[in-house]
Amino acid sequence: MHSTQTRTVNVGLIGLGTVGGGTARLIMRHHDEYLHAYGIDLKIARACGLDPARVDELGLDPAIFTTDWREVTSDPDIDIVVELIGGEHPATEIFEAALTSGKHMVSANKALLGRHVERLAALAAEHGVQLRCEAAAAGGIPVVNALEHALVGNNVLCIAGILNGTTNYILSRMTAEGLDFAEVLADAQRLGYAEADPSADVDGFDAASKVAILSSIAFHTRVTTDDVYMQGIRNVSADDIDQARELGYAIKLLGIARWTSSGIDARVHPVMIPRDHMLASVSGAMNAVYVVGDAVGETMFYGAGAGSFPTASAVVGDILELAQPIAHGAAPAPESEPYERTLPIRQIADLETRYYIRLSVADRTGALAPVVKAFADAGISISAVNQLADDGDGSCSVVFLTHLARERDVEQVCDTLAALDDVRSVASVIRIEDVDAWLDGVEKND
Amino acid sequence: MHSTQTRTVNVGLIGLGTVGGGTARLIMRHHDEYLHAYGIDLKIARACGLDPARVDELGLDPAIFTTDWREVTSDPDIDIVVELIGGEHPATEIFEAALTSGKHMVSANKALLGRHVERLAALAAEHGVQLRCEAAAAGGIPVVNALEHALVGNNVLCIAGILNGTTNYILSRMTAEGLDFAEVLADAQRLGYAEADPSADVDGFDAASKVAILSSIAFHTRVTTDDVYMQGIRNVSADDIDQARELGYAIKLLGIARWTSSGIDARVHPVMIPRDHMLASVSGAMNAVYVVGDAVGETMFYGAGAGSFPTASAVVGDILELAQPIAHGAAPAPESEPYERTLPIRQIADLETRYYIRLSVADRTGALAPVVKAFADAGISISAVNQLADDGDGSCSVVFLTHLARERDVEQVCDTLAALDDVRSVASVIRIEDVDAWLDGVEKND
Repeated sequence: MHSTQTRTVNVGLIGLGTVGGGTARLIMRHHDEYLHAYGIDLKIARACGLDPARVDELGLDPAIFTTDWREVTSDPDIDIVVELIGGEHPATEIFEAALTSGKHMVSANKALLGRHVERLAALAAEHGVQLRCEAAAAGGIPVVNALEHALVGNNVLCIAGILNGTTNYILSRMTAEGLDFAEVLADAQRLGYAEADPSADVDGFDAASKVAILSSIAFHTRVTTDDVYMQGIRNVSADDIDQARELGYAIKLLGIARWTSSGIDARVHPVMIPRDHMLASVSGAMNAVYVVGDAVGETMFYGAGAGSFPTASAVVGDILELAQPIAHGAAPAPESEPYERTLPIRQIADLETRYYIRLSVADRTGALAPVVKAFADAGISISAVNQLADDGDGSCSVVFLTHLARERDVEQVCDTLAALDDVRSVASVIRIEDVDAWLDGVEKND
Repeated sequence: MHSTQTRTVNVGLIGLGTVGGGTARLIMRHHDEYLHAYGIDLKIARACGLDPARVDELGLDPAIFTTDWREVTSDPDIDIVVELIGGEHPATEIFEAALTSGKHMVSANKALLGRHVERLAALAAEHGVQLRCEAAAAGGIPVVNALEHALVGNNVLCIAGILNGTTNYILSRMTAEGLDFAEVLADAQRLGYAEADPSADVDGFDAASKVAILSSIAFHTRVTTDDVYMQGIRNVSADDIDQARELGYAIKLLGIARWTSSGIDARVHPVMIPRDHMLASVSGAMNAVYVVGDAVGETMFYGAGAGSFPTASAVVGDILELAQPIAHGAAPAPESEPYERTLPIRQIADLETRYYIRLSVADRTGALAPVVKAFADAGISISAVNQLADDGDGSCSVVFLTHLARERDVEQVCDTLAALDDVRSVASVIRIEDVDAWLDGVEKND
């Protein structure tokens, strides 16, 4: 038990949905543990939501409820404002009001922070307060904390993550059951694993926001969601997954951010990775973030990227971190002044990797000759060709694997191929990620 | 760049071996990054080792070298003492001298901290300083930081880790190559993956120290190495691994610590876990720590548990955490007062799990009847029996799988079995861990 005198730490909660509700429940259920173990008397002093009935449901005191977030940000008793409504507005206004009033902030708002984390962190620094956002990247997985603290002695070289549970769930089921994207998506929607409008997940926006947040923190530079190349999983077929398996690969939607001497390489797209890579064993709706540091080498952080209590775990971890000094009469260290450098962002056209290209080609002798010529003309070297089963309409699928090639050349050759008489379509282009290159720059041990 | 005025933070390094050397190199190589990104001017002001030649090798200033650790702990300019010599003495004296002189400490000393982390943390609290030990449990993997910070909103329910790289390397090679323990150990010793005296690794002492440290932190109670039940991997055979594979399991040496209503269950021993469990995919000399919290659910932290630079990554992370306030003219928060509770430790005899028991039995009709009777008499229910290939000396191996059974009953039945005429030996007893039970107590999401 803590004998030192402590003062109550007042939290203002804005947003009482899934994450807000989990946060309220966690704080109330664990109040006594936090008090006994850490000397922190944590109190939800204000709760802002749309529906007063939610207050009853959560067991909060109705007297603290408001529908006006300004009553939270302007309340002089509030130490920490917790924004859990998501979206750009009024979240932006809430951040600005809270930070300029000298309140510390905790947020899980990946959409907003993916665009503006650097500006908002600078605003926090200017007003001597902290902005914490563990829950905004990979939910309950404590990777932001690791990047900001335990791994801070490293130059981070690479972050590669399964950052979206919906797409990992869909790809896992496609892999396990041999089904196509549309079938699994429909089932996932029925089961509540995918939204009615699944675009933010399946087209990669959600993962791109998290790449932006994580790479801004890891590389001390400005990376926004708009800087992140983005391609979703709609084009991945059961055939591709099957071919990948035969080649020893799994297909995953990864968010990748690498420090390179020519700039930050930040992208979200389906990749083939070796089936024995740790990221390949992450299945279902789980998330994982693989981080390579020059000293620590490879690390991986695994856990739930979403859900009421896992996300609340991250939110409450941030709240307690701020509450620790406040409870003992001190102020949390203000947000660091921004590290003023802006590293260039590498264009996807400059990517150099190996490619898996699946074409639908007329099933007749000689159809492949112009295809092979097109690759040769583009200077793209082919390592393997594999003709798959008949597509059933007088055409068949043929898979080409390239040696190392430049993205711009691959884009160009795909245009050329699509225009050939005997090529019905360029059905899939999937990058084969060089996972060994992720370790470039790791210090050799003695 | 940081515009605020900062002061140099002086580190006294005691121990210039593998980890000490990595730490010195990392601090020197990254000095400018730490200064620019965090405003921390980190300086190795004193270095204590046995051999002055090491100073040259590391590129340290010879003027800072000493062979007397007291010159480090008593130096008024030193802010942070870093103890990297390992062992109990003079490490204990270094801790006491440094902490009572009001110096913050960073240590990777798992043997010492496994026995005394709680007492030394209390000493740090008493003197208003911090004791940090990220590197002492699972090397470069930032799990201590996660338990003390990002996951602090959770009640930790279970920790299960691959905490020793040598044994994981040996088991991985036994699994991949079908070799027996002694063969792989000899090869591992030749390659430098195992010590000439491998006991601390293969008999589980090293992992038990880490279980003690992690469970003391996670459960806010005193768990020392002596409290941890310990059994190594010497008895695991290629046959067992083969049988496990057929049953859908992998064999791993796990350190397990669970909070239960009847006390802390803390143990290190080989277990069978499902092959699709995340811990089963950790191969070679890598480590991983699986942590279950009531809010976050399951998480896993993966990385290098040893090695010069990975361990230095954890040490320098701790140093920078302390250096941050010092550089800006403030004091790091002192170690929290100990949470004064001592939860009971559950005895291994009370463990209830399923068991894999391999007997060497005379190869003759009727030999199994008294075996089956012995199980029945002990009240142990058998779920499967599998006779393996002939052992070649008139006996054969027979594997029994039990339903849930109590450890004390299994111990007793093994004594009974060993005394039977037709039982040549009880060759292996391996616990089949109920990994689903690790999740008992996790909050259900809305």
